[in-house]
Amino acid sequence: MTDAVLLEKWFAILNKIGINEDGSASRLGYTDKEDAMIAAVVGIAAEYGLKHYADEVGNVFIYNGSGEDNYTLIGSHVDSVVQGGTFDGVAGVLAGLLTLKKIGEQNLNIPVKTGIFRMEESSVFGIACVGSKLVTGNIDEAALKKAANADGVSLYEIITQRGYKTNPAKIKNIKQYLELHIEQGRVLEAKGLPLGIVNSIAAPVRMWVKFTGNQDHSGATPMDLRKDSLVGAAELIVALEAFGRAELANSSVATTGIVRNTPNVFNVVPGETMLGLDIRGIDKASRARVLNETEQKARNIAAERGLKCEITRVSESDPVMLDPALQKSLLQTAEKLGIPALVMPSGAGHDAMFFTELCPVGMVFIPCKEGISHNKEEHAKIEDIVTGCNVLFEYLHPRA
Amino acid sequence: MTDAVLLEKWFAILNKIGINEDGSASRLGYTDKEDAMIAAVVGIAAEYGLKHYADEVGNVFIYNGSGEDNYTLIGSHVDSVVQGGTFDGVAGVLAGLLTLKKIGEQNLNIPVKTGIFRMEESSVFGIACVGSKLVTGNIDEAALKKAANADGVSLYEIITQRGYKTNPAKIKNIKQYLELHIEQGRVLEAKGLPLGIVNSIAAPVRMWVKFTGNQDHSGATPMDLRKDSLVGAAELIVALEAFGRAELANSSVATTGIVRNTPNVFNVVPGETMLGLDIRGIDKASRARVLNETEQKARNIAAERGLKCEITRVSESDPVMLDPALQKSLLQTAEKLGIPALVMPSGAGHDAMFFTELCPVGMVFIPCKEGISHNKEEHAKIEDIVTGCNVLFEYLHPRA
Repeated sequence: MTDAVLLEKWFAILNKIGINEDGSASRLGYTDKEDAMIAAVVGIAAEYGLKHYADEVGNVFIYNGSGEDNYTLIGSHVDSVVQGGTFDGVAGVLAGLLTLKKIGEQNLNIPVKTGIFRMEESSVFGIACVGSKLVTGNIDEAALKKAANADGVSLYEIITQRGYKTNPAKIKNIKQYLELHIEQGRVLEAKGLPLGIVNSIAAPVRMWVKFTGNQDHSGATPMDLRKDSLVGAAELIVALEAFGRAELANSSVATTGIVRNTPNVFNVVPGETMLGLDIRGIDKASRARVLNETEQKARNIAAERGLKCEITRVSESDPVMLDPALQKSLLQTAEKLGIPALVMPSGAGHDAMFFTELCPVGMVFIPCKEGISHNKEEHAKIEDIVTGCNVLFEYLHPRA
Repeated sequence: MTDAVLLEKWFAILNKIGINEDGSASRLGYTDKEDAMIAAVVGIAAEYGLKHYADEVGNVFIYNGSGEDNYTLIGSHVDSVVQGGTFDGVAGVLAGLLTLKKIGEQNLNIPVKTGIFRMEESSVFGIACVGSKLVTGNIDEAALKKAANADGVSLYEIITQRGYKTNPAKIKNIKQYLELHIEQGRVLEAKGLPLGIVNSIAAPVRMWVKFTGNQDHSGATPMDLRKDSLVGAAELIVALEAFGRAELANSSVATTGIVRNTPNVFNVVPGETMLGLDIRGIDKASRARVLNETEQKARNIAAERGLKCEITRVSESDPVMLDPALQKSLLQTAEKLGIPALVMPSGAGHDAMFFTELCPVGMVFIPCKEGISHNKEEHAKIEDIVTGCNVLFEYLHPRA
């Protein structure tokens, strides 16, 4: 059985779990669906004589018995967003499993664990990478108690009710951390490349910008007597894109994702418009330029139009640089295998980013169709997953 | 009792009906609340010996018995939007009542009817001025059957269930139609004037503009690989304002009232954005310029950004010119009384506009606080209503 056929078979097993009528996957973190996904992966692993254990927070590690110390951790996740896809996270876990299978087949003495981290997606509680953050000491109990779902139940309650701890021992003895993930962007597809070597993971600053003007009758209010909050907001949306574009070479991106316009009816000049902005970068100076320009522009628009403007930072995290030596090795490995690869930043966050203080971290991206993710249309080619696995395995066990 | 005190008393009676806890009024057309408002007005009228009758569609007319033919109709409405104000429409009906009371007190032989037209507001069924449209032949049964509320009940059903007809005889024998209404704009307040003489009523063209691009991960999609529907829409919002401003001298106005952005979350580049536009004018050529520029701009934005753009006209009606001779007489009357007045267009629609084919039509505006209407903050000064009434009465019965 080729690796591709094997992966197809494994995906088929997992794709019986948490699949909605429309074909999308809903496998939320710390639910029975995530448990079922982990159990299925463990079941596949057992067929190849692989062992497993769960840590104090429910992350599960599959290993080959080649030793506990100084192991390579190949991590990712099997949870999904609500109505998400079947490749996000799962591709990385199966890549780890395939690597372990290859090591076993060839009786190699390479200590590797495949880590399945809990609740990587932030859909329900607004916190991403919960399992990996917990075991790397990147989240505290206060944050877990504060994060609540729509029913008001805290993430702390969810985790403890399932018998897990929220102050676990830190994960240790990791030689290096590797992760394969679908790109979730269009870069590889646009360039026609099968592989990306990630050099950094961008971090978002998220903010609300609220413009307040006068809510007026749209027929009875002449153009020169208006204080239209939406037109002010629209000017900022256009400017934000320009600020982001100016930093293209530095890989920063700037997005207005959310518009909440009030009262949002045909016959009223909008009186209050909220924008939700997401500004990311791997270069903090570049990201800071976009942030400063944006806040300045928002204030200028408000002053010129007689609007009130309130800016609220929702979250702010720092970009993460992956290990340059590991990145170089992965790139050389791809070259050796004749696989054209692009060194690129990751715009999305991943479990990988929380291991950089513990060990060298490397990530490979594989293309996904039209960059679509978190959606039933999410699709990656099995051959691209195989390609990524080949690079990981070759890196761990270079041919002579 | 002065006219001001009397009006205060009448408002106090009516303001026991359909008032919400927050002080706003919800008196929807063709409901028991509108019935209660009409009954209360009729009750006040009866105290002054005035008679009344309802027509086939439920409009109610209060009259002084001075003759059925060749009468002056002073019309407006007593229904409101959901959580609206207490002056919109009601001020005009009470102005009619006060005029009838004055005529009665002085034993004058001036045939006047105060018309209370059903369902002037379009909140529930999307059709405004239902009562006045029905009796002037401006709406047919097909439109009433098509218009449905949120429960899927048609306006046709509502009207017929209440025992009214939907194909009534046309109203007749009207000498002239007068209406007093709050301005619902800021023009009179901004100019510090107590009275407006309306020369025309603007008519809206409403349209949806839908931009479709690519829904992408906001972190993983570089600025040069995006097709962001929201930024395209924002460019149109800014341009629409400029097109409207350029027609300021011609009194056209252009508003983006509605934004519906998809999926409207922080971490996704918007893939579909719908804008609801309202473009009005009294000068059809001016309005047509704004429309043409807007549609052209939308197409240009779409072409430049690789977006799809769909434009759908929701409604389109023609502006209405009020009677120039009547307008001149009202203005001269105001001058005679020493009341500074502004000849101005009405940006909002009113019952008055459907009578222009039947008789000369005149309208007066009184200021309202900050132009606010359709809101609990809606407020007009009683003294301004009195001023408007004085002009109407003086016009009907000029002093020597």
